[in-house]
Amino acid sequence: MTAPVSGPVLVIGSGLIGASVGLALRRAGVQVWLDDVDAVAVAEAVDRGAGEPWRPDAGQPRLVVVAVPPDVAGPAMARAGDFPDATVTDVTSVKAEPLAEARAAGADPRRLVGGHPMAGRETSGAAAARHDLFDDRVWVISPLAESDPQRVEDVRDLVVTCGAVPVMMAPEDHDRAVALTSHAPQLLSSLLAARLLDADPDAVAVSGQGLRDMTRIAGSDPRLWQSILNSNADSVADVLEAFARDLEGAITRLRQREDLGDALARGVQGQRRIPGKHGATATAYDLVPVIIKDEPGELARLFVAAGGLEVNLEDVRIDHVLGKPSGLVELSVRPEATTRLVEGLRALGFDVRA
Amino acid sequence: MTAPVSGPVLVIGSGLIGASVGLALRRAGVQVWLDDVDAVAVAEAVDRGAGEPWRPDAGQPRLVVVAVPPDVAGPAMARAGDFPDATVTDVTSVKAEPLAEARAAGADPRRLVGGHPMAGRETSGAAAARHDLFDDRVWVISPLAESDPQRVEDVRDLVVTCGAVPVMMAPEDHDRAVALTSHAPQLLSSLLAARLLDADPDAVAVSGQGLRDMTRIAGSDPRLWQSILNSNADSVADVLEAFARDLEGAITRLRQREDLGDALARGVQGQRRIPGKHGATATAYDLVPVIIKDEPGELARLFVAAGGLEVNLEDVRIDHVLGKPSGLVELSVRPEATTRLVEGLRALGFDVRA
Repeated sequence: MTAPVSGPVLVIGSGLIGASVGLALRRAGVQVWLDDVDAVAVAEAVDRGAGEPWRPDAGQPRLVVVAVPPDVAGPAMARAGDFPDATVTDVTSVKAEPLAEARAAGADPRRLVGGHPMAGRETSGAAAARHDLFDDRVWVISPLAESDPQRVEDVRDLVVTCGAVPVMMAPEDHDRAVALTSHAPQLLSSLLAARLLDADPDAVAVSGQGLRDMTRIAGSDPRLWQSILNSNADSVADVLEAFARDLEGAITRLRQREDLGDALARGVQGQRRIPGKHGATATAYDLVPVIIKDEPGELARLFVAAGGLEVNLEDVRIDHVLGKPSGLVELSVRPEATTRLVEGLRALGFDVRA
Repeated sequence: MTAPVSGPVLVIGSGLIGASVGLALRRAGVQVWLDDVDAVAVAEAVDRGAGEPWRPDAGQPRLVVVAVPPDVAGPAMARAGDFPDATVTDVTSVKAEPLAEARAAGADPRRLVGGHPMAGRETSGAAAARHDLFDDRVWVISPLAESDPQRVEDVRDLVVTCGAVPVMMAPEDHDRAVALTSHAPQLLSSLLAARLLDADPDAVAVSGQGLRDMTRIAGSDPRLWQSILNSNADSVADVLEAFARDLEGAITRLRQREDLGDALARGVQGQRRIPGKHGATATAYDLVPVIIKDEPGELARLFVAAGGLEVNLEDVRIDHVLGKPSGLVELSVRPEATTRLVEGLRALGFDVRA
């Protein structure tokens, strides 16, 4: 653990992320000033204990965290540069465009370091803020080529003080990465879910878990995603164009009854690249299916049994079934624990379908 | 509950599905004969208790279930029609093409009724068969226009005897439905996962739960899916062409920095059409996030607590976090139970982040 970041820290923007940064820093004893164009938001964040309201005569901040939406982050970072010796960072989910806008508006690139905590909630506003929102989460740090190394260290101290795991990535690399792993998948999920609007109700009735998985993120807030997609439009479009070419190729091969086996096999390989638990390379877990009654306490009984067998469950999936009050629960366990779990649960009378 | 299906039932194909049909019918006391081009597969299914081996002098089956891969199901159904009064059905995941091939090979359409149980396992073969594989699952029944109503009733009896929920759907409707809800999503998932192969390892490191959800089914068996996609190629291509048009429109709008809000909003609406638990319309569940230590027994402690509070968990998602031995568990509960769960868990010392 490095030292806590040196304060005072000025947080501009007192929404969910800004107020959570304040709470996380206050938890570590760092002095925090809060600002927002909306005085009510500041009052709410102060009330939550995220810091003191910013006043022009308060003094000079050592670090400024700009926590406003992507489309206004650039100018806000430039204004923050008016503090003569402050390090300036932001927390928006797109990096290159806001940083370029900050420079265009006159920000000093030596004191500017971009940031993106990979954390959020379905809700927004200071009322939803939490001191532990960033605990154990990746927080990407995106320096400019001109960023002073000591300024990068300041931001690293901020990240660690907030409980997060710093990952260094150039702004353009960050934006290309999240375009591929987050922004393009979001739009694909939305477009797939939207296809269901024209479908017959009977057709949608035969939906399985695969479709549910693929459309879950389609339920996200359209306004927020509109803003994110717009700020990273070209990187997202690049990913989607490559995807569209692959898709056109697959459609042609389907129409001509040609083999798609290699495209499917490439999917298997690609999926294996996604990091698993705790950022490690994905482990091939065994799936142990168990049928349980759909009643309070039934999952508890199952997990008590697994705990009693000293088996750590890596993941749990509940696959609901039609028509009857029962559920299929799939337990993911390390292969070396599978036999112990299966035999132990059966001995306890569980309906294990392994 | 209707009466058990009238036997004897001849099951052609003694793999996972065929042997499971045999086990489910034997459970209900129905006489079952098993056949397969592979005598070892028959022996294995017989050994599991799925029925007796078929012999030409055994007598006349009342019902024939063709449980062979889609590309050979049509001719097998035609041959099954040689039994003078048997109802003939199949269990393949595509309907129109195999049924058309059966008719082309001389099958009597009055005695022919297609079927598709929406059940399966990651493993295959009679050794993996289960008597309860179809319990509570949708089993689509796809009559031809010429199918005799009594033959349709025979297949309905088969479905109910196997423990499944019958859903009537014309073959072409079935194929269009599964193209939309299963086959096209499978290919989209594979193509998205394959895009990760060209990506920098650092880029893949910022993957979140959204990407994991969208690529889970990309891990499925390429050979099986190659066969399914080939047998339903035009319906899948139709869905993907409509999707590709939407995608091209979205890319154009991204490049021109035009608003995508309505496409995202349509995604939200489409996602809401997917049936939820037990085939009901999706309920908006509340998500209750809880941080637990990543140790044996921790999930158990959480579920015991939820059970003790008499809260039924509708779904569970474990969102692994980076760098530290802890996990974020999201509990889905009916909105009316949320306050009881949150306050109850907090009173018990749980780190609830609602």
